[in-house]
Amino acid sequence: MEISSRLLEEAVDEVSRLPGIGKRTALRLVLHLLKQPAEQTERLSEALRTLRTQIQQCRQCHNLSDREVCDICSNPKRDHSIVCVVEDIRDVMAIENTGHYRGIYHVLGGKISPMEGVGPQDLHIDTLIKKAKNGEVKELIFALSATMEGDTTNFYIFKQLGETALRLSTIARGIPVGDELEYADEVTLGRSILQRIPFEGSLNR
Amino acid sequence: MEISSRLLEEAVDEVSRLPGIGKRTALRLVLHLLKQPAEQTERLSEALRTLRTQIQQCRQCHNLSDREVCDICSNPKRDHSIVCVVEDIRDVMAIENTGHYRGIYHVLGGKISPMEGVGPQDLHIDTLIKKAKNGEVKELIFALSATMEGDTTNFYIFKQLGETALRLSTIARGIPVGDELEYADEVTLGRSILQRIPFEGSLNR
Repeated sequence: MEISSRLLEEAVDEVSRLPGIGKRTALRLVLHLLKQPAEQTERLSEALRTLRTQIQQCRQCHNLSDREVCDICSNPKRDHSIVCVVEDIRDVMAIENTGHYRGIYHVLGGKISPMEGVGPQDLHIDTLIKKAKNGEVKELIFALSATMEGDTTNFYIFKQLGETALRLSTIARGIPVGDELEYADEVTLGRSILQRIPFEGSLNR
Repeated sequence: MEISSRLLEEAVDEVSRLPGIGKRTALRLVLHLLKQPAEQTERLSEALRTLRTQIQQCRQCHNLSDREVCDICSNPKRDHSIVCVVEDIRDVMAIENTGHYRGIYHVLGGKISPMEGVGPQDLHIDTLIKKAKNGEVKELIFALSATMEGDTTNFYIFKQLGETALRLSTIARGIPVGDELEYADEVTLGRSILQRIPFEGSLNR
């Protein structure tokens, strides 16, 4: 697509560098901005720049944070003896949204994947091991995705911990709430039978 | 979705103001930027800001332009006696891409649409009428979309021109090249029969 204006072309080029956004969509977005008040573009431009230059990684859990230590790690009301191990910060948000977790997190920044060239040294595993051994932590919850890479990462961390008195757990796998059995895949359904849990009448009341 | 970082939240908010981009996509885009070198965000931010503050509308045809008069209007090799009337600058790009047009353009900035509250005074119709009467122009090509609004706009301009020696034309409507007849809508197919053109054997050679 030929764009006569150099300014427009540069903006479209930069926007289309974003994942999943082609030249056509980029052009549509940029033309939209031109129709809006200039302040909107100014705010967008400034928000991105500020974010990129000022955001930090929490020194303790590697979550994104405005300060050196994130809101969760610095919150005295959270239970610092339980650490939930997740891949990235979107998982933190997802778990926080449930409102069912009061412990703290540890963001690995990915999972071990030889296929993609990601090894243990690329992840925040050493800080996790150090944290796990500080005496304050009582339980580690593995909340990585249920894939080969996720399992490998769990196992690697387990090995690194060595002899430990920590309680180790993983989040429950099973049939999602509201799903019909006939559409569940066999592996999930099989696991959900093997790992069945006591029926709690109270949940149904 | 709860986002713990205020910086991140502001960036996601601004990005999700763009049309067709929800909070989740915005978050994905912003997290992507955070993984890339800081220069990419800087370039994106700067390109948008520069575009919004420096882009101009061509004084003659209302196309977007880096200068007061756009590259097309200021090109002495273009035929200034033929003016193609289009809705917006994307149409200019589309026609330029074909490589089949050597005249100049006039960008209306929309079409008359009472439903959306767009009247003739909101469009660049007066400058078109003035241009059409300057003596240099010999032909106007209406290239608006083939909708009720497009036809209304064509007709309004036609009326405003009054008695004129200009040649008026519209782009051909018909079956798109490569399309199968059975899938064409009736109106288009009907028109394409009524407005049939001489068979040119040369095209098939």
